[in-house]
Parts: sequence; C-alpha cells; structure tokens
Amino acid sequence: MSYLSPKKKENIGLSPYDLKFRGRKRADKVRITVFDITPENVIETPVDSVEELRLYRDSPSITWINVDGLHDEQLIGDISTIFSIPTYILSDVMEPSSRPQTEAFDNGFFVSIKMLEFDEKKNTVAVDNLSLIVMDRILITFQEEEGDVFDPVRERIRKHTTKIRTSGADYLAFALLDVGIDNYIYILGVYGEKVEELEGKLILNISKETLKIINSFKHELNDLRINIKPAKEMLNSLVKLDTELIQEENQKHYKELQDNINQAVDLLDYYREVLYDELSMYHSAMSTKLNDTMKLLTIFSVIFIPLTFIVGVYGMNFSNMPELRTHNGYFIVWGVMLVAVLVMLWYFKRKKWF
Amino acid sequence: MSYLSPKKKENIGLSPYDLKFRGRKRADKVRITVFDITPENVIETPVDSVEELRLYRDSPSITWINVDGLHDEQLIGDISTIFSIPTYILSDVMEPSSRPQTEAFDNGFFVSIKMLEFDEKKNTVAVDNLSLIVMDRILITFQEEEGDVFDPVRERIRKHTTKIRTSGADYLAFALLDVGIDNYIYILGVYGEKVEELEGKLILNISKETLKIINSFKHELNDLRINIKPAKEMLNSLVKLDTELIQEENQKHYKELQDNINQAVDLLDYYREVLYDELSMYHSAMSTKLNDTMKLLTIFSVIFIPLTFIVGVYGMNFSNMPELRTHNGYFIVWGVMLVAVLVMLWYFKRKKWF
Amino acid sequence: MSYLSPKKKENIGLSPYDLKFRGRKRADKVRITVFDITPENVIETPVDSVEELRLYRDSPSITWINVDGLHDEQLIGDISTIFSIPTYILSDVMEPSSRPQTEAFDNGFFVSIKMLEFDEKKNTVAVDNLSLIVMDRILITFQEEEGDVFDPVRERIRKHTTKIRTSGADYLAFALLDVGIDNYIYILGVYGEKVEELEGKLILNISKETLKIINSFKHELNDLRINIKPAKEMLNSLVKLDTELIQEENQKHYKELQDNINQAVDLLDYYREVLYDELSMYHSAMSTKLNDTMKLLTIFSVIFIPLTFIVGVYGMNFSNMPELRTHNGYFIVWGVMLVAVLVMLWYFKRKKWF
Amino acid sequence: MSYLSPKKKENIGLSPYDLKFRGRKRADKVRITVFDITPENVIETPVDSVEELRLYRDSPSITWINVDGLHDEQLIGDISTIFSIPTYILSDVMEPSSRPQTEAFDNGFFVSIKMLEFDEKKNTVAVDNLSLIVMDRILITFQEEEGDVFDPVRERIRKHTTKIRTSGADYLAFALLDVGIDNYIYILGVYGEKVEELEGKLILNISKETLKIINSFKHELNDLRINIKPAKEMLNSLVKLDTELIQEENQKHYKELQDNINQAVDLLDYYREVLYDELSMYHSAMSTKLNDTMKLLTIFSVIFIPLTFIVGVYGMNFSNMPELRTHNGYFIVWGVMLVAVLVMLWYFKRKKWF
Amino acid sequence: MSYLSPKKKENIGLSPYDLKFRGRKRADKVRITVFDITPENVIETPVDSVEELRLYRDSPSITWINVDGLHDEQLIGDISTIFSIPTYILSDVMEPSSRPQTEAFDNGFFVSIKMLEFDEKKNTVAVDNLSLIVMDRILITFQEEEGDVFDPVRERIRKHTTKIRTSGADYLAFALLDVGIDNYIYILGVYGEKVEELEGKLILNISKETLKIINSFKHELNDLRINIKPAKEMLNSLVKLDTELIQEENQKHYKELQDNINQAVDLLDYYREVLYDELSMYHSAMSTKLNDTMKLLTIFSVIFIPLTFIVGVYGMNFSNMPELRTHNGYFIVWGVMLVAVLVMLWYFKRKKWF
Repeated sequence: MSYLSPKKKENIGLSPYDLKFRGRKRADKVRITVFDITPENVIETPVDSVEELRLYRDSPSITWINVDGLHDEQLIGDISTIFSIPTYILSDVMEPSSRPQTEAFDNGFFVSIKMLEFDEKKNTVAVDNLSLIVMDRILITFQEEEGDVFDPVRERIRKHTTKIRTSGADYLAFALLDVGIDNYIYILGVYGEKVEELEGKLILNISKETLKIINSFKHELNDLRINIKPAKEMLNSLVKLDTELIQEENQKHYKELQDNINQAVDLLDYYREVLYDELSMYHSAMSTKLNDTMKLLTIFSVIFIPLTFIVGVYGMNFSNMPELRTHNGYFIVWGVMLVAVLVMLWYFKRKKWF
Repeated sequence: MSYLSPKKKENIGLSPYDLKFRGRKRADKVRITVFDITPENVIETPVDSVEELRLYRDSPSITWINVDGLHDEQLIGDISTIFSIPTYILSDVMEPSSRPQTEAFDNGFFVSIKMLEFDEKKNTVAVDNLSLIVMDRILITFQEEEGDVFDPVRERIRKHTTKIRTSGADYLAFALLDVGIDNYIYILGVYGEKVEELEGKLILNISKETLKIINSFKHELNDLRINIKPAKEMLNSLVKLDTELIQEENQKHYKELQDNINQAVDLLDYYREVLYDELSMYHSAMSTKLNDTMKLLTIFSVIFIPLTFIVGVYGMNFSNMPELRTHNGYFIVWGVMLVAVLVMLWYFKRKKWF
Repeated sequence: MSYLSPKKKENIGLSPYDLKFRGRKRADKVRITVFDITPENVIETPVDSVEELRLYRDSPSITWINVDGLHDEQLIGDISTIFSIPTYILSDVMEPSSRPQTEAFDNGFFVSIKMLEFDEKKNTVAVDNLSLIVMDRILITFQEEEGDVFDPVRERIRKHTTKIRTSGADYLAFALLDVGIDNYIYILGVYGEKVEELEGKLILNISKETLKIINSFKHELNDLRINIKPAKEMLNSLVKLDTELIQEENQKHYKELQDNINQAVDLLDYYREVLYDELSMYHSAMSTKLNDTMKLLTIFSVIFIPLTFIVGVYGMNFSNMPELRTHNGYFIVWGVMLVAVLVMLWYFKRKKWF
Repeated sequence: MSYLSPKKKENIGLSPYDLKFRGRKRADKVRITVFDITPENVIETPVDSVEELRLYRDSPSITWINVDGLHDEQLIGDISTIFSIPTYILSDVMEPSSRPQTEAFDNGFFVSIKMLEFDEKKNTVAVDNLSLIVMDRILITFQEEEGDVFDPVRERIRKHTTKIRTSGADYLAFALLDVGIDNYIYILGVYGEKVEELEGKLILNISKETLKIINSFKHELNDLRINIKPAKEMLNSLVKLDTELIQEENQKHYKELQDNINQAVDLLDYYREVLYDELSMYHSAMSTKLNDTMKLLTIFSVIFIPLTFIVGVYGMNFSNMPELRTHNGYFIVWGVMLVAVLVMLWYFKRKKWF
Repeated sequence: MSYLSPKKKENIGLSPYDLKFRGRKRADKVRITVFDITPENVIETPVDSVEELRLYRDSPSITWINVDGLHDEQLIGDISTIFSIPTYILSDVMEPSSRPQTEAFDNGFFVSIKMLEFDEKKNTVAVDNLSLIVMDRILITFQEEEGDVFDPVRERIRKHTTKIRTSGADYLAFALLDVGIDNYIYILGVYGEKVEELEGKLILNISKETLKIINSFKHELNDLRINIKPAKEMLNSLVKLDTELIQEENQKHYKELQDNINQAVDLLDYYREVLYDELSMYHSAMSTKLNDTMKLLTIFSVIFIPLTFIVGVYGMNFSNMPELRTHNGYFIVWGVMLVAVLVMLWYFKRKKWF
C-alpha cells in the first residue's frame, strides 16, 4: 500500500532536467480532462491533444486541467512548453515515489501529496501521488491512476456558483488538498474502529488469529504513517512558501489544512498506541495462561506423584514385608493417601492456587 | 469518551463555507441563554428566537450568549448574519470532532477546546466540544450538550460585582477556559488517585482482574491525552494570536492558562508512567510466580521420580532377584530411599530453593 | 512525596483574584520572621502583626520577610495591600500544588519552586512549595511549613559582611533558589548511591524483595522528577524575564542556576536509566533461573521416565513372559538401564546442559 | 560496513594543519583523472603528475579532478599549494572516518559525505568517504577507493551538451551528491525488500535461523543509519552555507537534496520499525509455541497420572485386598478409568484447550 | 568512573564567591608548570611559588600555566588576584563534579570539560575535570590529577615552530579541548570493539557470563554518556560566546570541535543501540532455549507416560484378568506399545518438533 516502491537501478543519478517516468505504469492511456470555470458557467470537457490546452492558457477563466497517467514523456514535455513550467518541476511530477514536497517557481508553485482511497470492497487502501501545479488562473493536477477522490470537489464546482468558482486556482488547489486530508482522517477512522473493536474481542479470547490481526493492523498503520506524516512537514513549508499566488484571503484555509493534518497525525499516534497496548495485553494474557497451565500440571503432579510412589512401595515383591500381611494394611494405606491428598489440597487452597 | 467519532463519508470535502452539522446530534432542541452583564446588574434570560439577540449586539453591556445544540443549521446561519461572524468560522463550530484550535477574524477571535466533565455516579467522563467566539463586548459559546461545567463561572458573575463583570468578553472567555482546564486537572487527580491506589493492591495480590483494571486505566488515560494534549498547542497559538481583543491586562491570565495546561500534561505523563510501572510490576510478579510454580513441581518431581523408579525395580517379577529373598531387603530399600530424599533436600536447601 | 495533591472540587473555577488557600493546612499558626540587612548590621526578629511590616517597606535597608503558613487569608490580603502586590500573584502563592512558575508584575517579580528536604531519620523527602516575591530592597518568601533548608543562607547573612548583604533582594533570592537546587542534587546523590549499591546486590542474589526495592526507587525517582523537571522550564523563563529588578551583575548567577538544574536533570535521567537497567537485569536473571529449573526437571524426567517404564514392563503379570524365567534377566535389565543412563548423561553433556 | 574504524592512538591530538592520512590504506596507487568540460567538448584524461593540474587551474573550462587514494601526503600537499586550498581543509579530507561535514573557505567550499555502493554479488555494502572541494570552475573529489558510483554522472557529462556541461562546478558537485543519495535510497530499497519478504516467512514458520536473519538485518540497518543520518545535518548546513559559489539558480537543486535525504531517513526509520515489529512477532510466536507445548504436556500428564496411580493401587501385594478377588473388579477399574478420561477430555474441551 | 561524586551536605548553599574545594582530594601537592612560548623559543619550567607567575602576566609571550591539584584554596585565591579572574569563576574551578560549562568574564572566558583517559593496563577509564581560563596571551588550565592526556599537545608545542606557537591562547585552548574530544572518540572505539566482538560470541553460546558482560558494558557506556553528552551543549554555548578572545581565524577550529563531539555522540548512541540489540538477542536465545528444553521434556513425557500406564495395567493383581493368561498377551502388549510410540513420533515429526 505504501509509496515505497524501491528505486530502480537505472534511475540512479538521473538529471533533474530529464523528463523520464520513474514509477510503475498503471494507467493504459493518458487522459486529460478540463474544467473551465467562470462565475456563471462551468465547462467540463475531455481533451485529446495537448495543443488544445493552449486555448485555456490565455483565457480569463479559471482552468483546472487534470492529467491521469504520467508515463507519456512527450506529453509532459509539451505541457512544460505550453505553460512555461520548468522541466525540473515536471521531472518531480514524474517521480511518483517522491516525498510530499512543495516548491515555488517563477510563475507558480508546485505541491505533491499522497492521495489515499479506501476501497470498501477489497478492504484495502490505494495510494496515488498527486502533483498540483498552481499558476495564475491555471491549476494542473497529475496522478497516475484515475480515482474518484475528487468527486466531492467536482460536485461543488458544478453546483455552487460562489466561492469555489470565483476564488482562483489557489482556492481550488486548497479544496483538493483538503479532500485528500479529509480522506486520511476518514481512513484512519475506518481502521481505528477495527482496532477498537479488536480490544473488546481480546478480553474474551486470545488466539494466534488475534496476533495475526494485530500484526496486520500494525503494518497497515505503519504504511499510513509513512504516507501521512511527511505531508505535515510539506504543509509547514507550504504556508511559509514565498509566493504571491496564495491570496491573502485564502491563507487561512491553508492554515486550516495544517490543523487537519495535525488531527490526522494525532489519530494515527493514538491508534498506534492503542494497538501497542493491545499487543501488550495479548502478551500479558498469554503469560497468565501459561501460568494457569503450569499450575494445573503442578497441582496434579504434586498430588499424584507421591501417591504413585506409595502404591509402588507395596507393589514390591520382597518376601519379608510385614505390612502386606496385616489385615487392614490395604485400608490404612488408603487412609494415609487420603490424608496426604487433603493436606495438599489445603496447602494449595491456602496459597490461593484455586 | 474520546472526541474521535470517525469522519462520515458524506462529510469528506465539504466546503469550509458550508454550515453543516458534522457531529452526532445529542441535544433535542437548541437552547440559547443570555447573560447580560453591566457592573451594577446581571440579567440571565433564555432566548427563544435568534432575532432577540440583535438587541444585545449594539448595547454597551457585556453579553455572554450560550448556545446548547449545534444541529440547527438555520439558527447558526442567522447568528453568523447578526454578528457578522465569517461562515468558515461557524463551519468549524459545527465540526465537534475537530482539534482544539484558535483563529482570529476581522472583528473577533475563535477558540475551541474539549470540555471534560466527570460523572461521579457513572464513574465516566463526558466530552463535549466547546467553541468560543470572542468579539468586542460579546462572547458566544457553543456546545452540543448542556453541562454544568460552567456553574462556578455563572456563580462568580452573579455574586461578584468586580473583575468578572467589568473586564470584558476576553476575561469572561478566559474564565471559561480556566474552568475547563481546572476540570482536566481535577479529573486527572481522580484517575490518579485510583492509579496510585492500585499500586498498593498490586503488592498484595495479582490476578487477571488487576490486569483488566490496568488496561482500562491505560485506555482512559490515552483518551484523556488525545483530548488534553492538543489544547496545549492551541493555547500556545492563542497567546501569540494577532488580535487586539485580548486586553493587555488580561494577557497575563491567558499565560496562566499555559501554566495550568502544562501542569495537566505533567500530571498525565506522570500517571501514564506510574501505570506503565505497574504493568511492568505485574509482569515481574507473574514471572516470579511462574518460577515458584516450576520450582515446586521440580522439587516434587526430582525427589519422587527416582524413588518411584526404585520401588518399580523391586516390583519386577524376575524369578531370580536375590535381594527379594533377603530378610532385611525391604528395610534396606527404605533406608536407601530415605538417604536419597535427605540428599535431595540438602541440595535444594543449599541452592536456596526454599 | 510529590506535590500532586489532587484538586479539590470546590477549587475549580476560582477567580485568580480570590485569596483562598487551596492546599492542605500543615502549620498551626502563621509565623513571620524578618531579616533586616544593612552592610554593617543584621537584625533578625519575629513579627507578630502584619502592620509591623510597614516599617520595613520604606526603610533603605534590604529586608527579607519569611512567612511560614499560607492558610491565613486575611494576613495574605494585608501583605498584598502593604506592599502593593497584585492579588492574582498572591492567589498563586496560596496554591501550593501549582507548577514552578515565574511572573513579573509592576514593581517586582514572582517565582515559585518546590523545596525538597531529605529527612535522614525517616529516610523520606519532604516537599514544600516556596514562593518568592522580589521587589526593590524587599524579598518576601512564603511556604506552608517551616524547614531548615535555608539555614546555610541565614548563616551566610549573619557571618559575611560582603556580597550577600550588599547585593540586593535579587541576590538574596538567587541564594535561596541556589540552596533549593543544591538540595535537589544532594537528594539525587543520596538516592543515587542507594541505586548503585543495589546493583552490586543484584549480581549476588535476586528475590522478591529486590523487585520491591527497585519498584519503590522507581516511584521515588518519578516523584523527584515531577518536582524537579518543571523547575528547569521555570528557570528558562526566569532568565528571560522582562524585569529590571535582576541587576546586570547578578544575571550570571541566575544563569548558573540553569547549569545547576541541568546537572540535577542529568543526574535524574542517569539514575532512572541505571534503575531500568537493573530491572532488566532482574528479568534476565529470573528467566535464566527458570531455564535452570526446567533443565533440572527435564534431566531427571528424561533419565528416569524410560527406566520406570522398563521396570514397569517386568512388573507385568503375564503368565508367559520368557525373560522373567531366565537366570540373568534381572541383571541384564540392570545393565540395559545403566547403558541408557550413560547415553543420556553423555547426550546432556554434549549439549552443555551441565 | 560502517565508517566506524576506531581512532588510532597515534592520531589523537594531531594538528588540523597536519597532512597525515588517518585511515586504512586500501588503494595501492593514487590515481588522478581529469574531466575538462567546455559546452562543446569534454576531455577525459588520466594525470600522472600533480604538476599537470596547474594547466587546468587557470583555463576558462570547467574542470573535475577526481583523486582516488588519499595516502600520498606529498601529493595532497601539492594540490593544496597549486589550488590554494587551506591545509586544515585537506587535513579533513585525509580523515576518512570523519562525520559528513561542510565548510566554506576563502575561495571555495568543502563537503564530505559517505558513498555507499551495493555489491550485488557479495550482497554487501561498501562504504567510502567522498570529499568534494568546490571552487570557481574547479571541482576536486577525493576518495580512497575507486568505485563506479559516479558512472551515471560521467555518462551525463559525455552525452549531454547542456546543463551539466554549462552550469559550473557547483552543479557538478550537486550531481555527485545526488547520485550518492540516490544510492542510499536504492540500497535501502534492496534491504527493505528483504525485510518485507521476511515478514511473509515469519507467519509460516519460525526458527533460530529467522532470529539470526532479523538480527543481521538490524545490524545492517544500524550501520546504514550511522552512515546516512549525519548527511541530513550536513545538508542542512550546506544550504545555509555562506558562499557565493552556489549559484542562485542551483540553490533549488541543493534544496532538492534535502528532500531526498529526508526520504532516505524516512525509509530507514520505516524499515527499522518493520524489523522491530518482526522481532516482536517472533517473540509472540515463540511464547505461543511454548504455551502449546506446555498444554500438550499438561493434557497428557493430567490424563495419565491419575490412571497410573489407579493401576498402581491394584498392583499392590497386600494379602487382604477384597477388590482383587471379585470377578469383575478388573473390568470395573477399566470402566472407572474410562469415565475419568472422558471427564478430563470434556473439561479440556470446555476450557478450549483444543 | 563517572563525575557523579555525590554532593556533600556541607557544600549545600556555598556562596559563589567562596573559594572552597568541593571535590575529593587526589593529588598530594599542587604542581604548577609553565610553558612560555614565543615563535622562536619555548621555555618549560616548573613553578614553586605563585608569585613567580606575575612575571608572565605582563610579558608579550604566550603563556600556558598548568595547575595540577585544586585543593589549595590560598593558592587559587592568589591566582585570582594576580590575573584579575573573578572569584565566582575560580569557585567553579574548585567544583570538580560540575557540569561542562563555559562563561565569559571581563578579560577572558572560562571553559570546563571532562577529560577521559583510558588506562590500558587496568582496563578502566579515569575521569578528571579540566578547567581552562583563556585570557589575552595567557591560558591557565586546572585539573586535580596530573595525566598525560596533553602530551601530544606538549609535543606539538616543542616541535613545531608554526601555528601552535603563534596563534594565541585561544588556539592553545582549542588544541587541548581537541585532544580531549579525540580521547572520547578513541575510548568509544575501544569499548565499541569489545561490544562488537561480544556479538560474535553471542551467536555461539550464551551464558550468565555474557549477561554480566553486557550489563557491565551498559553501565560503562552510561557513564561515558553522562561525561560526554553535556560537552556537546557546552560547545554549542562556546561558539556563541560573546568574547573577542576567540580570534576570527580560530573560530573555524572551535566549530570543528562541534563536528567532533557530534561524532562522539553518534558513536555513543550507535554502540548503545548495538548493546541493546545484543541484550534483546540474549533474551531471544534464552527463550528459544527454554522452548527447546520444554520440547524435549514433553516428547519424552508424552511418549513414555502412556506406555508406563499400559504396563501398569498388566501389573495389577486382579484374580480375573483374562489377557494375562493368553499365550501371546505379553507380545501383543509390546506390539501395541510399539505402534503407540510410532504414532507419537510421526505426530511430532509432522508438527516439525524435530
């Protein structure tokens, strides 16, 4: 689930001006869709050739260009030319396993973040690297695979005639980042509920299965952590970014993103703690169980081993064993054994063994 | 107990200008009460319609408006209009699972914090999100459920004719936050006493019950932590807030809140440490107990197993076993066994097994 | 030992202008003593009525007023009036379980710190909250119980005719804080020696007693920590305090206090680490012991269980058991058993079991 | 693998102006190679005598001088003279076990970093200390052993006629550092894959071998950590370095190095965490296994020990044992024993022992 | 080994202007030696009376005065007078268990650091507190016991006619501190090698002895840590020190000290980590061993206990046991037992017990 696809040997030492896709190709074809937004109207349209994008560059409307699929190096190069985005920025876009980062350039700024999407059916989390390039009236987003994480934002653009249509590309970028972090919190909540549920089960019974579940949760929270935690640092850099493209009235929203990522990290740490406590509880329960097992064994052994010895004594075949010939010897032995058992039981009782 | 109600899927990507209640509805009806305070007089009155609040907006008295119940989106919208509070602030008010935060706006500032209230009867802690909006001469507080955490402040307003009546909305807000943090310390003290008490019991006897109690305390302190710790960060932002609404003479009180929250966090960490030490003590005691059990088993086994073997030997039915026919064989065997036992006991004694 | 007396419910939400004693009354009567210091002369005198203090307020001599006992609210109020100390400062003085803190006010500054005093006889540490109010030529100290921690300072005042008599109230306050922190280091040394001593014992023998001692030391170091650590933060604030009352030539001494508290915290962390290592050593020793016990049991069982089986075989009463009738059967069985034992012993030897 | 070759006694207290090689000699002969770069042309040539380097000092081309082998003190001294590099800088170059560091001097700056190279055949990582001296149009690199880590950069210089040939010595230095950090990430990926693979195996079976593998991975990640982590600090100093030799247009690339080293450290911490989780899983599995072993022993013992006692009773040789003479006694005993076994099995079943 | 000699009760609350020796007297007599250095010549001479030092105070040469032995309070007082060093500085010199610190005064600055010296024969580390007072052309060093840590510096002064003779007292002080930190790294290397060596042994066999060695190493690294770590903080203060006595050309050397102490702390943390991993490996090995022991016991018990029961059955003396009288009964029982053993062995094999 993590973005940790190991580095390929051939990608070591690539020039930062080299537009080479460094990830694993997941989309077949590159799909470009455009939202052209004016306060009065929204035009949604798929775009076939990069050249069509030239139209939007100079129009006064706010344009959101979404690119799904990063492997077409020619296409990315053309975007670079049309919008005058430096190549070293687009080279970062083509490295999907990079760390969330932000960087200002001459006529815009670049932000990347991990998008997590919970698949309810498969019960897994899909990760994709989202890159945003924010310029004056233009927002370009890149990801490898098409997801429906952005649907709430698309809906807002379609419906609302206010804020989101009029506040510029920086507000649009905020809305997308916001939806991304909301998804973090949502997914953490989903795992969190499972983790809490597990705690109830742990009190009832412990088994190898619970251990496996705890371990898989630990792995999943670890994965979430490496995806989510660097975003906090990135947002700290983002609000300090030296760019005029974030309008003053939108800065408060970018600060809000920090509050949200902090909440996500809080939640993450909280559930990790809960999970560690559960593991410690598992171990305590195991050791209590071992103690109980050994007590049972010890009680049986301590009671029966001496008895077995006694009956062994009178099973010996010595010719001269006076007790054997007495009339009540057998019954006396029974009596002695009974007393021994009672003494033992009293002893264990006093020591609170049962 | 925690504020961690998981995010609902439909709340992902909501606009920060959307007044939608994102919590769980707990109060049936919204209740608004007003304290209208002049140095000479205090008027307490419930308010039925939002429109009545307009009266207080322009009056020179200090007004504390308390709103219990956040689910009425229309009502919150009206408050926004009457008092010119930006919608994105009230949208935060309607997210009761948000992190404690603070934000300045044009004519005021916004603070949110978790209110904890210990229910002596049920032995549980109730959590509610308190939002305060502080403006010139107006304080508006929002929470979902009505509690009596604020009673001490209400009493002070009713009785005292000084400070709290004359020092403005910022002092009133301080008093409420102060009562909130005092409650943190009070609740930590209640749990702390239980945790310390447990330590005494641990020395006397350990059982599965103590393990369960330790685990439930750990869970509760974890919950307290996620509610309390973010408040420290929030207060750090609050004292640095760029607002003229906190009067210079009241700034020292806001700094005092930092001292208090630091004490709460100290206490929290102290009791967590005590609890971890108790858990470690439990494990040590368990392992000591296992050791003792195994010693007992080993002593009995080591003594009786060889004896049982010896008597087994003379229980064999070989036709030619010279010892069996000797007159004192039986007694010699007893002697040998006695010596063996004594040697064993001496050995265990020397090794300090008992 | 800690200052963690839990908050009383009735003290929640008290006004910071309320002079109410919030601690546990330990002294019967309030005792006020005055040191009136001129370079040439020192007058030590007990004071019965607060009114007498007025004399010292305006005299050019340096005056140290020590108040033992904080529960007399009237008296504290009078001091506030005579020396124009704000009520909210004295309200902090009357909260003995507050965190070490420092605060400047118009004509002075306020410092509070925990005083620890080791009772050699009872082998315990007494904690008291010391509040210092430093004004121009006036130092007022408050604590609940009279101790002799300050004796070295009193001696220095009585004997020396230099520095301590001439350097003002701020130097006097430094001397008292210094003696407090010296006591921290002294007490840590006393515990430290015990902790180190324990390590020697641990190698020789381990018992439940050592576990109890380790646990009590852990508790005591935890208590020392919650008393000592916040003083570090307090001293950091103190040296940054915006007050002209700390003379430039004395600032180096206040910085020296920081070095000393850092040493105390170093020591604390060092001994905590040693203690944790001892606990880990205890566990290792326990598990080694369990291993040894189980080895002994296993050796005996593995050797004798097969032998007991063999003799059991020839104790069977089948009518047709050819071996029983052979002349040397019995001796052959003995031989077989001997060989079995030797094989076993060789096996355990090779596996380095003994 | 680590750079932690212990300090030799004779190297204590050497003057920072002493050009003495303080490492372990690994290269036989010093090899100097020169890349002389103009936008149009690249000349690669080995250099035999240091004097030849004088030519490049004053030429307008960009020159990269690579020195493999640090033990020739005379030669290093000559380089110092020719290029006016202060001796204390070159003395750092000759200490291969020093920490990654950076320092500006009059006409240049000095950077050192650990180069890691994964040997696919031997499955080990080789470490070498790389020192870079960046001056106007001159880059000198020093390492003890020749490796092929820099091959990608050499290729780029040979092929491309742009950026890397025209951007100066600082860009060239960046390219080398970049290739170094890319190698960190590549190597971490290689280990990471092995660590993740191990997790799958752990679920299937645990053995002493897995423990050994976990421990060797822990050691290797520890070694990577001590080589990689200080580079983060070094890069932080590097971007703050007070030098005009890093051109403004290249500063963004130096900042990119920080992003990359952060990613390396993230990965390192992630895999360390995974490894610790695996170790904890190993322990859990071990303790589960012990529990299962003891259960098996206890079940057999608890069932058969009483039975053995019963049959022992009727093996006694008392003359008066009425049961022995009854016709069905033997069968009744079998019945009793069968019932006892069934009761036991039912008991264990109810307790969920199997 | 540590500098943690506990505080004596009589030293609590001493005035910072009191020249009282607060350590343990180790040297019999105070020895003063002087190095009088001009670029052309070096005069080494022991000094008997403090008065002789007056000569050097005003001479233009650079003078290093080394004082071994701190207990002569009169002598230290005289030095204070002759060189106008404030008493509160020399009072710190006389507290050998103080924390490494640095402080500027009117005409100089004061630095203290722990000197560690490894005694190859005794295999122990000796600690001494080194105080340096750096003034214009004068360096005074104080320590309680004479060691030969400084020999490399003395040699450099004697031999070289450059840098160390001409660069002033601040360069001389740097050289001494440098030799001190080089010794830290050297000693850490010595311990480090032992710790690494232990790891090899741990794989081969584990015993109580290894546990004791691990624990003693932990203690020794703990001791090194409390001596070394505060030096890092001290050096951070030193480079920020507000003094003109550190010449601009020597500041880079003081910064180099920071790099070196960072390397020492890196090494310390690295070896501590290795040691903790070794302890964890010890525990894993112990628990694996216990598992193996219990497996052996269980295999033997599970195989023989049922067999012993079977032979016990046919050892019963019932008059009516039909099997006993059959001709092949005995052999059938052997057959049954053989089958039982084979089934058991197959079961254990399948469960991978051996």
